[in-house]
Amino acid sequence: MNISSKSNLNKNIKHIEGFKFITFNAKVKEKSVRDDFLIIIMDDRSKVSAVFTKNKYCAAPVLIAKKNLKNSTKLLVINSGNANAGTGKKGEQDVEKINHKLATLFSIKPSQVLPFSTGVILQPMPVARIMKSFEKYLTKPFLFKSDWLDAAKAIMTTDTIPKAISKTFNIDGHKISCTGIAKGSGMINPNMATMLAFIMLDVSISQKMLNELIKQVVAKSFNLITVDGDTSTNDSLVIASSNKAANEVIKTKNKYYFELEKHLIAIAKNLAQAIVRDGEGATKFVEIEIKNAKNISEVSTVGKVIANSPLVKTAFFASDPNLGRILAAIGNVGSINFDPGKIDIKLNNSIVIRNGQLAKSYSEEKAFLAMKKKEFKLSINLKRGSVTESVFTTDFSYDYVKINAEYRS
Amino acid sequence: MNISSKSNLNKNIKHIEGFKFITFNAKVKEKSVRDDFLIIIMDDRSKVSAVFTKNKYCAAPVLIAKKNLKNSTKLLVINSGNANAGTGKKGEQDVEKINHKLATLFSIKPSQVLPFSTGVILQPMPVARIMKSFEKYLTKPFLFKSDWLDAAKAIMTTDTIPKAISKTFNIDGHKISCTGIAKGSGMINPNMATMLAFIMLDVSISQKMLNELIKQVVAKSFNLITVDGDTSTNDSLVIASSNKAANEVIKTKNKYYFELEKHLIAIAKNLAQAIVRDGEGATKFVEIEIKNAKNISEVSTVGKVIANSPLVKTAFFASDPNLGRILAAIGNVGSINFDPGKIDIKLNNSIVIRNGQLAKSYSEEKAFLAMKKKEFKLSINLKRGSVTESVFTTDFSYDYVKINAEYRS
Repeated sequence: MNISSKSNLNKNIKHIEGFKFITFNAKVKEKSVRDDFLIIIMDDRSKVSAVFTKNKYCAAPVLIAKKNLKNSTKLLVINSGNANAGTGKKGEQDVEKINHKLATLFSIKPSQVLPFSTGVILQPMPVARIMKSFEKYLTKPFLFKSDWLDAAKAIMTTDTIPKAISKTFNIDGHKISCTGIAKGSGMINPNMATMLAFIMLDVSISQKMLNELIKQVVAKSFNLITVDGDTSTNDSLVIASSNKAANEVIKTKNKYYFELEKHLIAIAKNLAQAIVRDGEGATKFVEIEIKNAKNISEVSTVGKVIANSPLVKTAFFASDPNLGRILAAIGNVGSINFDPGKIDIKLNNSIVIRNGQLAKSYSEEKAFLAMKKKEFKLSINLKRGSVTESVFTTDFSYDYVKINAEYRS
Repeated sequence: MNISSKSNLNKNIKHIEGFKFITFNAKVKEKSVRDDFLIIIMDDRSKVSAVFTKNKYCAAPVLIAKKNLKNSTKLLVINSGNANAGTGKKGEQDVEKINHKLATLFSIKPSQVLPFSTGVILQPMPVARIMKSFEKYLTKPFLFKSDWLDAAKAIMTTDTIPKAISKTFNIDGHKISCTGIAKGSGMINPNMATMLAFIMLDVSISQKMLNELIKQVVAKSFNLITVDGDTSTNDSLVIASSNKAANEVIKTKNKYYFELEKHLIAIAKNLAQAIVRDGEGATKFVEIEIKNAKNISEVSTVGKVIANSPLVKTAFFASDPNLGRILAAIGNVGSINFDPGKIDIKLNNSIVIRNGQLAKSYSEEKAFLAMKKKEFKLSINLKRGSVTESVFTTDFSYDYVKINAEYRS
């Protein structure tokens, strides 16, 4: 992890009632010496919701997971080492073969398996090696593991650390436990199809409300991070609840729904930020707060046009308060009809741009010192509405180019 | 110029009947030791058309040039060294002051001046120094210059070479002469507001047809280049014709109109490509041909999502045939509902992706060797329509980061 965080990442990771898991080395990469396969088994009452990449080249497992999501899911099956993307009909057939085998082994239907893959693109899945590993590791009684850090490790590709986080909170006086795992270095990994996140909890909730919840959670967490603006072919977020907790089932958008939403957004934000902090080549962790936008979509659009500008990112790397580049980036948002002459910008807590022009109190030296820190915050006040959220990003460093250009050597 | 071209750049630059110009050192930057001010004077029968940046933070001169374009333009006034962007009302007042002074000196109306600026953002224009230079250099009889390379030099900022090109051709048996000048290193210059281009010719043409022409020309030339996806606050393209040539005035979209369009697109493409080739840090000049798109907008959208992907650009730098990144970039085009499973990709003349998957004949070694060259071509066949055009771009190198991150040191 390039830029360490103060969050509870990888600390006190909790077991969640209703979820079991197995990891093993399926030799997805022939020379793999570590676990690269994760199977999460869910109890009958579990509800699962998922959102997937919008990339048109979405991978074979994404296509099948989308299809199977309609059915009552029993297994989440995740491999690292191969993304099974750009593999056509053959790729889908490979997934179905694996799902059929797992269905037999776990006495469920193939359609109850949700598959996920991450790794190299354009390479066929090594189905024979995977099947062989099933014979070796999926014998009864199943050897369930208990430390979810092992699960987080099995889904890593070039991540420098595993990413797991746990949280407990109360809903209507009942304790709810939640554990999330994620992988990704922000889609900056060579040839990797990148972001996967799984959040498990035990809250009692209807399928409809869980489906509603995931939209809000992803919009305010994973959809607000960017390392380089490239959305991968395999991105997936799953939220699964075992419904084991004693709270009254959440069936409407009542106050417990909104409490739950708040907690899940917090855990998802932590996981999302862990991905940004692990961005390879990153030397800075930058929060770009968009204040007083009309809606979350404006936050995302304006925040990302800044966060993805190579000119802005290289300025971050140089601790260079190059406000012209930031203004020019904002000015390039074509879809929102805002008034550039009204925008204020703060760097940490100091005003640097007032109404689209340099603030009188602006000190370039102070701004430079603020940006020399490993973490800083830019706050862009659009003065249009009442929504305030932040986009999180990194800089572009020499190492960014090195990692992405030189991995063959 | 990083990647030299075989075009006629800076060779045999022609005088165009009906245009005169003056250059001088207006000390726009206090320590400037070279000419940074260019005034182009046009004859009465001239017609001028212009297109401007869509950046909302468009600079003060852009706002005023847009307003003044309605009137019969006599002067094109261009300074380097200061973009007069992010300068608010004061910035506009500064332009008006300069225009008033020039109007008096040239016995025209202030509204007959089209102003253009390029240089640093967020800094006030040094109006006093500019006025002083007028006293020194704009005394009658005006000292017109004759070598348009001097004009191209006066508008340079961090361009490594001036960019001028000339072409003559026939319309209905009459000789037409055309000279274009441009500046810009592809908006990758530190703090610079970047692209300016002026194309002068003598063809006889109506204002309406010139206005029509410029849209086609910009769409197929300057709008199809990108270095880093950042559109500057000052980008402008002007096409001006003195109407001195003996051809029958082009008043409709007759065959002469289309011949003229073809020639102007060619000259504008040459200038646009010269800007890309001069992209600082660029080690590769890459043509991304989009074949069989439905329209030019699809070419631009698909071509630029590839050309602006940092993952693709670093792969270009490394001569790495990382086709997964190219497919993933294409898959991120949300606005066009194409079928990724149908796409073919050629690298130079070799098929590498057929129907969204690796071609059987693909050789990674051959692809690597093709990409090791300073120039290569990717051809993406969308199989949707009949429009084929190319986007031109560069790679992301260590020097890209260096130039954009370290210019303060």
